[in-house]
Amino acid sequence: MTICILVTGGTFDKEYDEIHGRLFFKDTHVGEMLALGRSRVDVTVRTLMMIDSLEMTDDDREVIVANCGACQEDRIVVTHGTDTMVETARALARGVPGKTIVLTGAMVPYAFGSSDGLFNLGSAVSFAQVLPAGVFIAMNGRVLPWDRARKNRETGFFDEV
Amino acid sequence: MTICILVTGGTFDKEYDEIHGRLFFKDTHVGEMLALGRSRVDVTVRTLMMIDSLEMTDDDREVIVANCGACQEDRIVVTHGTDTMVETARALARGVPGKTIVLTGAMVPYAFGSSDGLFNLGSAVSFAQVLPAGVFIAMNGRVLPWDRARKNRETGFFDEV
Amino acid sequence: MTICILVTGGTFDKEYDEIHGRLFFKDTHVGEMLALGRSRVDVTVRTLMMIDSLEMTDDDREVIVANCGACQEDRIVVTHGTDTMVETARALARGVPGKTIVLTGAMVPYAFGSSDGLFNLGSAVSFAQVLPAGVFIAMNGRVLPWDRARKNRETGFFDEV
Amino acid sequence: MTICILVTGGTFDKEYDEIHGRLFFKDTHVGEMLALGRSRVDVTVRTLMMIDSLEMTDDDREVIVANCGACQEDRIVVTHGTDTMVETARALARGVPGKTIVLTGAMVPYAFGSSDGLFNLGSAVSFAQVLPAGVFIAMNGRVLPWDRARKNRETGFFDEV
Repeated sequence: MTICILVTGGTFDKEYDEIHGRLFFKDTHVGEMLALGRSRVDVTVRTLMMIDSLEMTDDDREVIVANCGACQEDRIVVTHGTDTMVETARALARGVPGKTIVLTGAMVPYAFGSSDGLFNLGSAVSFAQVLPAGVFIAMNGRVLPWDRARKNRETGFFDEV
Repeated sequence: MTICILVTGGTFDKEYDEIHGRLFFKDTHVGEMLALGRSRVDVTVRTLMMIDSLEMTDDDREVIVANCGACQEDRIVVTHGTDTMVETARALARGVPGKTIVLTGAMVPYAFGSSDGLFNLGSAVSFAQVLPAGVFIAMNGRVLPWDRARKNRETGFFDEV
Repeated sequence: MTICILVTGGTFDKEYDEIHGRLFFKDTHVGEMLALGRSRVDVTVRTLMMIDSLEMTDDDREVIVANCGACQEDRIVVTHGTDTMVETARALARGVPGKTIVLTGAMVPYAFGSSDGLFNLGSAVSFAQVLPAGVFIAMNGRVLPWDRARKNRETGFFDEV
Repeated sequence: MTICILVTGGTFDKEYDEIHGRLFFKDTHVGEMLALGRSRVDVTVRTLMMIDSLEMTDDDREVIVANCGACQEDRIVVTHGTDTMVETARALARGVPGKTIVLTGAMVPYAFGSSDGLFNLGSAVSFAQVLPAGVFIAMNGRVLPWDRARKNRETGFFDEV
């Protein structure tokens, strides 16, 4: 079983620009994280975009939907900023039937050394292997069907609704 | 749903004794790891022992079996050294029917900063929530029924047999 | 010999606000860093302010000058943002004669795990113990008299002028 | 001014062998540490040996003395295990007059992520730039002439005698 990991950016992959003191995107850390986790899961990693999910447009979401639909794998993990993760999940639920799609992200950039990203990636890759077809949000060790998840902007956590 | 996490030691929880230059056990890092992972899974953590799995006796295994049987949760994660993880899994399969038990561990101590432990813990906690009753080994992002897992002592990975 | 460490903020002590995805200041990490470095240097640590040095006013500089002058130690380390480090050094050179004052900082926040801060702190504390009276910039393993140091905004490093 | 950094091993450079659960030596981390510290000090790094200082022989010490004497730099940092650091310092004091030689090491391997090594390296490189000719031990942020330093085996720290 191969899992397709589609990278879209988000806090997960933000880096610190030490010259300007800003956060920015360069390359994804997903490969490095899988290596750190000694992952033996068969994966294909593809970077679709590297953006903050607050800046994600409908066109960007169409790119994600198209790639989830077109890839040959039936089990997909999408790394994504948490702010609009549910919106992308909704687009995927409409546009990609019959596949198991798990969206995940992080509250702290992996590059900052104290990230929840490694924990979430282990979790998402695991849920993607065993859940039935559908679109899910895997954050904070838990998994929720996309239409029952809502980000709580005060706590940063996803609540079940 | 509450998951019971039973701690038995293993590489997962080894620390570096800077006075004597040796590895040793102190307290478990499971709580700290769940906090780092921003875990929102409802868990009960109990330390049963803190030992290297090469030194685990049949009596130790009986303690683990008894605790898995007696705890009120039906979903259990056992942190364990990898060397004899399969032996403990066998004892659990015989002694604790009807529960979902996931054993996990690490190849590198969490305290060494570059551990697979956080990835594996995210993975094990996830598998424990969705797998049916049975005893499983969750390592390297994958899950295997205990009787199909074997540690490859040359690579350190668990192979499917 | 006791060294007085005066904390003013800067990148050194920035943290990541995981709810809003911004950098901010909370408490200084200097104590934690000295513990990590197993420092046995006799120090007094005092936080004067926690600000980005781009926002430092002349009044703030007067506070730093007053504290350097008033403290009973003759050897002082000032942690400081790099952008206006030289300006504060100039104020100290005018206002605090007869003491060894070493300014240091970081290009990457200590909290991000991959910081130059620990290296710079080891360096600054060392230079402060052996240099004669004067005001110095200790960054990147080197030390420069304040009037020969200039931050290169393209590289982030301090050049000798 | 160029500083010669001579690597001999010690806790500084130990790594964790995840297959056998042992500590071992591979390559030095000094280059990586200087990069992490954004060091701009002009250095030449040479690995003389990679050994635990408890296993260092008189022949090994002769190699270190010969290299310190032969190198063209007058300012030298030697990374070294702490257990016999003072013995090597004694050999250097006898065999290499007229140079500033600073020995340093670590209590925790750099590879374990929570090391005093980066702090000590910043400190040693700094002391090496400004101290007069002589042989010194730079540990825990302090510097001691070699003949006044003694490792306290109970605390792991170097005491002044």
